[in-house]
Amino acid sequence: MQFFTSLSGIRWCLFYFLMASSAVQAQDEDALMIRRIHEEALVKGKAYEWLTTLCTKHGGRIAGSEAYVGAANYCSQVLSSMEGVQTILQPCEANYWQRGPKEEVYITDQRGKSVRLRALSLGNSVGTGGKEVVGEVIEVQGLDDVERLGREKIEGKVVFFNRPMDPAQIRTFSAYGGAVDQRVYGPSKAAEYGARAALVRSMTTRVDTFPHTGVTVYKDTANQIPGIAICTEDAVALSRALQTGVVTASLKTNCGVVGPRPAPTVIGEIRGSTHPDEIILVGGHLDSWDVGQGAHDDGAGCMQSAEVLRILQSIGYKPKRTIRCVLFSNEENGLAGGRTYAAKSNEAGEFHLAAIESDAGGFTPRGFSFEADTSKFKLYYKKVSSWLPLLESYGISFEMGGSGADIGPLKSQKGLLVGLRPDSQRYFDFHHTADDVIENVNQRELELGAAAMASLVYLIDKFGLQ
Amino acid sequence: MQFFTSLSGIRWCLFYFLMASSAVQAQDEDALMIRRIHEEALVKGKAYEWLTTLCTKHGGRIAGSEAYVGAANYCSQVLSSMEGVQTILQPCEANYWQRGPKEEVYITDQRGKSVRLRALSLGNSVGTGGKEVVGEVIEVQGLDDVERLGREKIEGKVVFFNRPMDPAQIRTFSAYGGAVDQRVYGPSKAAEYGARAALVRSMTTRVDTFPHTGVTVYKDTANQIPGIAICTEDAVALSRALQTGVVTASLKTNCGVVGPRPAPTVIGEIRGSTHPDEIILVGGHLDSWDVGQGAHDDGAGCMQSAEVLRILQSIGYKPKRTIRCVLFSNEENGLAGGRTYAAKSNEAGEFHLAAIESDAGGFTPRGFSFEADTSKFKLYYKKVSSWLPLLESYGISFEMGGSGADIGPLKSQKGLLVGLRPDSQRYFDFHHTADDVIENVNQRELELGAAAMASLVYLIDKFGLQ
Repeated sequence: MQFFTSLSGIRWCLFYFLMASSAVQAQDEDALMIRRIHEEALVKGKAYEWLTTLCTKHGGRIAGSEAYVGAANYCSQVLSSMEGVQTILQPCEANYWQRGPKEEVYITDQRGKSVRLRALSLGNSVGTGGKEVVGEVIEVQGLDDVERLGREKIEGKVVFFNRPMDPAQIRTFSAYGGAVDQRVYGPSKAAEYGARAALVRSMTTRVDTFPHTGVTVYKDTANQIPGIAICTEDAVALSRALQTGVVTASLKTNCGVVGPRPAPTVIGEIRGSTHPDEIILVGGHLDSWDVGQGAHDDGAGCMQSAEVLRILQSIGYKPKRTIRCVLFSNEENGLAGGRTYAAKSNEAGEFHLAAIESDAGGFTPRGFSFEADTSKFKLYYKKVSSWLPLLESYGISFEMGGSGADIGPLKSQKGLLVGLRPDSQRYFDFHHTADDVIENVNQRELELGAAAMASLVYLIDKFGLQ
Repeated sequence: MQFFTSLSGIRWCLFYFLMASSAVQAQDEDALMIRRIHEEALVKGKAYEWLTTLCTKHGGRIAGSEAYVGAANYCSQVLSSMEGVQTILQPCEANYWQRGPKEEVYITDQRGKSVRLRALSLGNSVGTGGKEVVGEVIEVQGLDDVERLGREKIEGKVVFFNRPMDPAQIRTFSAYGGAVDQRVYGPSKAAEYGARAALVRSMTTRVDTFPHTGVTVYKDTANQIPGIAICTEDAVALSRALQTGVVTASLKTNCGVVGPRPAPTVIGEIRGSTHPDEIILVGGHLDSWDVGQGAHDDGAGCMQSAEVLRILQSIGYKPKRTIRCVLFSNEENGLAGGRTYAAKSNEAGEFHLAAIESDAGGFTPRGFSFEADTSKFKLYYKKVSSWLPLLESYGISFEMGGSGADIGPLKSQKGLLVGLRPDSQRYFDFHHTADDVIENVNQRELELGAAAMASLVYLIDKFGLQ
């Protein structure tokens, strides 16, 4: 083959060679930066140390509680301690719900044998006011069953929602999505047909001893009955008992909504040098349920987000755009933090070029999921996809799909919304239980998630999205 | 655009359509089969139940011990209980090494302050015969340091190998590979230069309280000194103490090689219907160290391999080729199981078309690694790569690289050697410690590994490798 037919040909060739080699150089520079980000996270990482403090000193930080305010102050200190990070507490009000003294839930089979169930009132649920509520248990597999059975069969009963999360789903979040309607809408639906209370099988694929709480939502203020999660081991036993005859449940709970309480969202930012008006947000939600320490849900995401700022700063990276860490309030029980943040951001005329949320546990990152409410989404996705070769060796892949609850309200700003996608296999072992504690978080897995987020922030900041 | 210009054109079009749809149909059939394999593993899986029994009843099953023989009998029963599975115990002799009474390792700093270290003799190490060995501690960062310091500095000392596993490596096995020479060859190297004993920093990226044992190898029978692992927390403290002055170590250990003992390899197979002479092996090693339960290393791999047979049988798949589950003896301390198995297989003129080993823990599978000692390897790899679209949605990727220690000796048969590659982040938290117990294995992660292996076995069996 003939390469050089003239001097001009040689010149062109040289030009392309230089172009190509400068592209390679740029790619190398980015690879090196991403390598440094990972080294910083894995060798000098702070996320695990911070998370340990958050969990052990500010566990059970339900929005509106004193524990939440303590956690917000702690995180504010963590962020403020970084040079060049401006920190504020954004006022926010959460509808504070309190569990009160421990639930007492018993079932009695037809031979008169009584067993105490391992139970947790659902978040937002009304209580029995400490009085005993008694009713015959009727098992259903979902909301449809309640409608089908109708008032005749449901009235005066304790409805037991027992459809399990499907263990055959590879992604446990899909299995959760396929069962959680029972917890969110089950008590309200049962109330519509005259039930006295609702028991809900805990949201986990395992058969174990931890009740999993989580929010329940009432359709209206008229029909509100207590909603209580029971552990899957007890759900299995209750279902078995029902096969042999009538089972009666007796419930005594003390929970209820207390009312609005301050629960600030914590914000820390590094202002961009050349495009300060384009914000790249990293965040998670700071509130947890009142049981456990909120280690995976979502202390992990919060401390990873703070770590993103620390990493970028420690390696001496000066962002062109504004990098903002937002630790949202009240995700679990109303989303007041995310809604308030977006409303104030819109009022101020801000633009979030991208928002990345980590709220799926501190497990080994497998990738990111992207969405946007704009015709530019394809363009955005094409751009980020061009960076995939830089991240693949870290086990990261990309997909289109949902991002995170707290950043959802930012969709109207037409930026790119991103969810960190860690390995999901263990998440529902701990989710919303007393076992969501620091001991169940692995330091390296947590750090790798922070490094993946910092890498993506670096690339978006450097190259933009178009 | 113009599609059909003649009847002949329509015929051709129809032909291509049918060809394409039958290819799609075949692909759909395989996708369905792989779906069924995963459902079977995740919904009716037995691997975790078997592993629980193996761990709790036959833990610490070092090859040559009674615990090992008990484990072999148990696994033989598990395999025999499956219809159509022929099971044998293949005789094998392991050089049995025994720890004896607990190690006593103390260090004393120059102010006379003594501390007991959390220590474990290395496998294969000589002991002190219960007598006290005392020496001044000298810290080194590797084998080179010992050579550089020479007899003058090393003689009469206790050499402390303290180069950590590099936490910045994304794959922890690379970090292990970069540090483990100190454990394997350190004591022998120190002995060459007249040292009295060797202390080795445990092989983990964490700073924690568990000493990690593992094999050490002596160059010859003349120079053998005790080799002892200490936990990383103690390694850090010892290194700090050495910065302030002279530190003396006092060691008392009781370990040593007892001699050859029977330690059979367990084999169970389903004979192939049309190509019985082509063997597809799935396996792990049944022996563990004497501490802990050998849950991840490698009870997990063994029970996953047995589960592959159960899954294929339960879903009614009749293999064309012979599917053989092999639970190797003595991987940890000599590889007698793998060597004996390959020698007997060669004698019998067998051909292993493929051998798949799971020996990297029962964590979420990330993919497979392939190798072969034949010019056909590229062909093999091209073939397996064509199946990747079927496995990607299960989080599986492929790469060229090492397979497993036990199947290594089969390389001369020129088949494809494959290693299951699970997520590696947590492996060295537990590896060779008292904490490698069933409580640290997640059921779903274990099951997904078995399903990935069964899927690959199904594809190799159905399509061959050429």
